Amino acid sequence: MAADPRFFPAGSALTLAEAATLAGGELRGGDAALRITGVGPLQAAGAAEVSFLDNRRYLPQALDSQAAAIVIAPELLARLPEGRVAIVTKQPYLGFGRIARALHPVPSARPGIHPTAVIDPTARIGAGSEIGPFVVIEADAEIGPGCIIGPHAVIGAGVVLGEGCRIGAHASLSHTIAGRGVVLHPGARTGQEGFGFAVTPEGRFETMPQLGRVILEDAVEVGANACVDRGSQTDTVLGAGTRLDNLVQIGHNVRTGKGCVLVAQVGLAGSTHLGHGVQMGGQSGTAGHLEIGDRAQIAAQSGVMSDVGVSEVVGGSPAWPMRETLRAFATLRRLAKPAGRPG
Amino acid sequence: MAADPRFFPAGSALTLAEAATLAGGELRGGDAALRITGVGPLQAAGAAEVSFLDNRRYLPQALDSQAAAIVIAPELLARLPEGRVAIVTKQPYLGFGRIARALHPVPSARPGIHPTAVIDPTARIGAGSEIGPFVVIEADAEIGPGCIIGPHAVIGAGVVLGEGCRIGAHASLSHTIAGRGVVLHPGARTGQEGFGFAVTPEGRFETMPQLGRVILEDAVEVGANACVDRGSQTDTVLGAGTRLDNLVQIGHNVRTGKGCVLVAQVGLAGSTHLGHGVQMGGQSGTAGHLEIGDRAQIAAQSGVMSDVGVSEVVGGSPAWPMRETLRAFATLRRLAKPAGRPG
Amino acid sequence: MAADPRFFPAGSALTLAEAATLAGGELRGGDAALRITGVGPLQAAGAAEVSFLDNRRYLPQALDSQAAAIVIAPELLARLPEGRVAIVTKQPYLGFGRIARALHPVPSARPGIHPTAVIDPTARIGAGSEIGPFVVIEADAEIGPGCIIGPHAVIGAGVVLGEGCRIGAHASLSHTIAGRGVVLHPGARTGQEGFGFAVTPEGRFETMPQLGRVILEDAVEVGANACVDRGSQTDTVLGAGTRLDNLVQIGHNVRTGKGCVLVAQVGLAGSTHLGHGVQMGGQSGTAGHLEIGDRAQIAAQSGVMSDVGVSEVVGGSPAWPMRETLRAFATLRRLAKPAGRPG
Repeated sequence: MAADPRFFPAGSALTLAEAATLAGGELRGGDAALRITGVGPLQAAGAAEVSFLDNRRYLPQALDSQAAAIVIAPELLARLPEGRVAIVTKQPYLGFGRIARALHPVPSARPGIHPTAVIDPTARIGAGSEIGPFVVIEADAEIGPGCIIGPHAVIGAGVVLGEGCRIGAHASLSHTIAGRGVVLHPGARTGQEGFGFAVTPEGRFETMPQLGRVILEDAVEVGANACVDRGSQTDTVLGAGTRLDNLVQIGHNVRTGKGCVLVAQVGLAGSTHLGHGVQMGGQSGTAGHLEIGDRAQIAAQSGVMSDVGVSEVVGGSPAWPMRETLRAFATLRRLAKPAGRPG
Repeated sequence: MAADPRFFPAGSALTLAEAATLAGGELRGGDAALRITGVGPLQAAGAAEVSFLDNRRYLPQALDSQAAAIVIAPELLARLPEGRVAIVTKQPYLGFGRIARALHPVPSARPGIHPTAVIDPTARIGAGSEIGPFVVIEADAEIGPGCIIGPHAVIGAGVVLGEGCRIGAHASLSHTIAGRGVVLHPGARTGQEGFGFAVTPEGRFETMPQLGRVILEDAVEVGANACVDRGSQTDTVLGAGTRLDNLVQIGHNVRTGKGCVLVAQVGLAGSTHLGHGVQMGGQSGTAGHLEIGDRAQIAAQSGVMSDVGVSEVVGGSPAWPMRETLRAFATLRRLAKPAGRPG
Repeated sequence: MAADPRFFPAGSALTLAEAATLAGGELRGGDAALRITGVGPLQAAGAAEVSFLDNRRYLPQALDSQAAAIVIAPELLARLPEGRVAIVTKQPYLGFGRIARALHPVPSARPGIHPTAVIDPTARIGAGSEIGPFVVIEADAEIGPGCIIGPHAVIGAGVVLGEGCRIGAHASLSHTIAGRGVVLHPGARTGQEGFGFAVTPEGRFETMPQLGRVILEDAVEVGANACVDRGSQTDTVLGAGTRLDNLVQIGHNVRTGKGCVLVAQVGLAGSTHLGHGVQMGGQSGTAGHLEIGDRAQIAAQSGVMSDVGVSEVVGGSPAWPMRETLRAFATLRRLAKPAGRPG
């Protein structure tokens, strides 16, 4: 199955030799000059397409595949029959992605400002940027060169976007400083007021002024309809390369290190700090004011109530070291077995 | 309490006889020619309104109700006093809904294109469609006849909508093919990039091109601010009649069968497949690459980590067969009782 | 660290004496006429800024702080060294907030209607309101005086907003009656159709007409991308002063009392009623048709399956009285200890 040309216009074709080079691999067999025009999964790729295999569970599909070549790791190569054309590389998933990207490049900015956009005269728009219909750019905002600002996006007063940012439809940014290559998917929200208030003697809530910002370092991505509140007194900071999936919630004053990965519907309460390379599974959350060490892993749906050490793996709600949580649930299951039934 | 006429303009009145016919039921007692103008809950319905009862817990309210008639199942009828006017049908909730719908029809499209809409000249708009203010319709998109596209909605390049779709305010669609009667509520997002990336040897993340689409079969509904990512290589597919509540997250390559129901804040990780008629309670989630059988039921807040069989009922996080989960929690509660306190 | 002047224009300065009065406190030491221009956290506040301390854990930072004065409770005052300038008040957090607010007032409405706004001729706009670019206000809507309607907001037909409401960018309201001082943050949705349908004998879903409204009492706040569905037959009601954090889901017919606090990603299923002052931690949820008593507290990630009494504290999924849940998890952890390892 080729990509639907209504959505993915065909780029230039590649030869198999070029594809192998892009993948950082070596071509085994096949015609180095064969032209490939697309990529596809093993069971659907056609004779002008490249596929990949990085899990031996899918070997049967590989054996049947019509793909022009299969990107594969050296240790799996022996499993393919003699005649099978392959591109051998230590990182087949990455290599395959690079071939796919060459065939279907990210659309680049179509420089220009849509006539319906409302742009404050004090705002600065970098060269080569594309500003879509109904975009609003408020006073003193700065848009770097080569940015794509999607339809209806709202860039608040004073917001800064570095070079090559992509802002999806209906996204809104206020009180935000973003580096290069930052991506906001549709409906993402950054910089709105955090959830902070004091209680008066009469029992009413008074909003605490939220006087910080959101700092999005280079290459940060924020998923669709995800929310990143600005800091209350300090800043909310997402470290370089950090990726938030859809519907993630980031409370005020949160800081993450570089390269964190937060899967969909994760929630971080205010003032929690994540180290570098922390990974959180879907629907997990943390209490506020915690320290989560570098490379910690937090399982899906976990509820983290206390600090987590470097490289620790935790799970459950409340979250314990993963091994303990697994043992606890195994124990519970055993204890709950109806009497007289074999194990 | 009649529906607020500021929001629900009165339609034509119905006679009790007409109401009974619509409900697929029989009128017991009352004046068949009596005109009813609205519906309401038992305790609030007035003398020109119809109410319904499908739970014996609410019998006391039924006895006191001023409603012109009560839609009721045969097995509850005997509980009503002799003189009480009733519409007797095996499906009182459905029947009541049909009466309500006849009195308050779904607003139909007011054909026309708002002058502020930005529509690419290559896009096709079906006859009788209503295109609201500030709508953006990009190149080669196709809007079927009789669609309602709400204010600020963005219909991306190449997107296809079948007949009679309703797209809420601020919704965005890209890379999406929708059938007939598809509904997106406000702020819903379909077709944005899925959450997929490879890691380079230097530890950076590289986005994997997301080359699939979103297929929304006939009568699919997507809740407010819910997100449906497009496939990475294959498509993300929601089967006919499937309904997503608000803030639901659907990862790339997910497929559901017909008539699935996903309550608010559910999350499905990538490449998981649901059979027909699967029901998932609020805030539940599944890991990726799972197979969930037809008519499986997944309790609220469950975390599904492995395949679920046809008609299985599971709950807990991690999710086990519901009976085991209930027993486990009962056991745990018993074990945790402080010593010396009676059961 | 002063607040970034790109985002927080400096207001008028205050003298220390004025600050103390605003905080409802007394100045200890220092020059009553000293002018302060901002606020900041203990470790970052400069010599013209005020900070606060309400947790003895941060005493070391207080000792080192450069702040002009520290807002502090009487019982902590003795911990500060003799010469330290302080503003002493029983409610340091509230007092500090009032100083911060005086220095950085909430931006007031800049009266006027942006020329791009689309406003139905039957809608009424109160004096002094600010209507942003691309706002849509539909037929018969009423906007109170002094409201700020952010860019792209959609105010549906018949919607009523009281005096001084603030509606964020991309928010949408339909079928909603709001009191004074109601705040919707960006992307919030109120009044859309609830999740209700009947099943036909053929197994299809038929939407139940959703004929209620959303009532937002005075000073209610709805977080970014949060959703409040309208009632099906009765109304969905949020009591005065209730605050929803981001991405919260409120099902149809829910009612809350005054001053409830729902942290991010909470979900309330349909027809559940909360008393006054109920607090729910992040990612917690309730089943439908429950009664939650005044001042009940529901821990983060809890799943409430049955009614909760006045002032009860519950946690876990399913939620039990917090003490039982804590004991159960402690018991489980003990039982799961590997044999032979000391406790």
